[in-house]
Order: sequence, then structure tokens, then C-alpha cells
Amino acid sequence: MGFREHLQDVCKSCEGALACSLMGVDGIEVDTHVEGGAELDVKSLLIEYSGLLRSAREAAEAHEAGGVAELSIHTDKLLTVARLVSPEYFMMVALAPDGNVGKARYLLRVTSPKLLAEL
Amino acid sequence: MGFREHLQDVCKSCEGALACSLMGVDGIEVDTHVEGGAELDVKSLLIEYSGLLRSAREAAEAHEAGGVAELSIHTDKLLTVARLVSPEYFMMVALAPDGNVGKARYLLRVTSPKLLAEL
Repeated sequence: MGFREHLQDVCKSCEGALACSLMGVDGIEVDTHVEGGAELDVKSLLIEYSGLLRSAREAAEAHEAGGVAELSIHTDKLLTVARLVSPEYFMMVALAPDGNVGKARYLLRVTSPKLLAEL
Repeated sequence: MGFREHLQDVCKSCEGALACSLMGVDGIEVDTHVEGGAELDVKSLLIEYSGLLRSAREAAEAHEAGGVAELSIHTDKLLTVARLVSPEYFMMVALAPDGNVGKARYLLRVTSPKLLAEL
């Protein structure tokens, strides 16, 4: 099973999921699955959010709060949850505002080791 | 009831809460309640995280994803949840890793209108 299939599976299994992405912490995308019907340019937004993950990591390290495991950003139109897969890579799911964030978090937790095994 | 009492109430009502803060989006603290026993310099970290909220807002606006309602950052040692109170102010709760994030989110939701009424 390749990256793309895992990302697709996350979207299929989670109500309201619009996109799922595997990205380098440097903001360079490895692979992204976008569901049909996403109105926003979710892909570009996820790349922009990767900068926040870097900043959160720097802030947490500077204050000895440990590594960043998860980052969520909820806006009026999009719920986003990111989870670190390895120190260099993270997964991110974007959902519609009525999407199931709890399920998305669960799916990231169980899928990230599978992606890590293939990195 | 002043700001401080509301912030204290959030900490008292939420298992594992270490600090609760009302802050300007510009990173200037209005008031913070820190529970005894917080090992980290939670206050400084919250101020640093306020920069992430600003960045998230800029990114979301640039991609027409609407206003940022909530931001969560989970590190190995600290779970943090921030919620916008008004366009200029936000509340943030920091919890121990075994803290009740769901309760914290709920408390932010019900407390933010109370703080807004006093701003």
C-alpha cells in the first residue's frame, strides 16, 4: 500500500474529510489526496500551515515543553489537524466545519506508523 | 466577577489545567492565572504561542478559510488550547499531558462570552 492509498483511506473513513496530506516539516509536500468538492484551495493552505508547525516546534523547544505531537487549527470554514509522523514528516487532515475531528485525530494516530514504515 | 476569577474558575474546573490566560492577539497579556506546581514557564510559552495564532489567522484569511476560532498545540509536556474571544483577544488554557482537553475546550467556549462582556 503506497502513501496515496493511506491518505485516501483516512479521507474515506472520516466524515467531512476534504484532504489528507503527508508533508515534510519544511513544507514540501510528499503526497496529498484531495476529495472532490473541496471549495477552498486546501492544498496551499496545508502548505502554509506547515510553517505554523515549524514555529510551534521552535517555541516548544525554546521553552522545554518537548516535541510537538499535534497541532489543530479550526477556522470558520475548515478544521485542520496535523500530527507528526517522524521528526521530518507530518500528516495533516482538513475537514469541513461539521467534520468529525475526533475520528480524524484517531485516524492520524493509527495511520502515521503505517506511513512511517514506508518512509 | 473580574477576569482573574473567570480564569481561575477554568483552571479549577478542568482536570490537569496548569494555567489560563486572557491575551491580546498582539501577544500582550491581559491577565493570567497560573496553578501552583506548573514546572514549565507556561506564561512565556503562551505569549510565544500567540504569535502562532496571528500567523494562523493570516494564513487562513489569505486562503479564504475564514477566521481562526480555535488553535491547539500538543507537545510531550503540555497541551494547549486557544480560543478567540473577540477579533482582538483570545483565551488560552495550558494542561498537563494527562489533562482533560475536551473539558478545556468546553470551558473556553462557555467562558469566552463572559470575558467578552467585561472587555
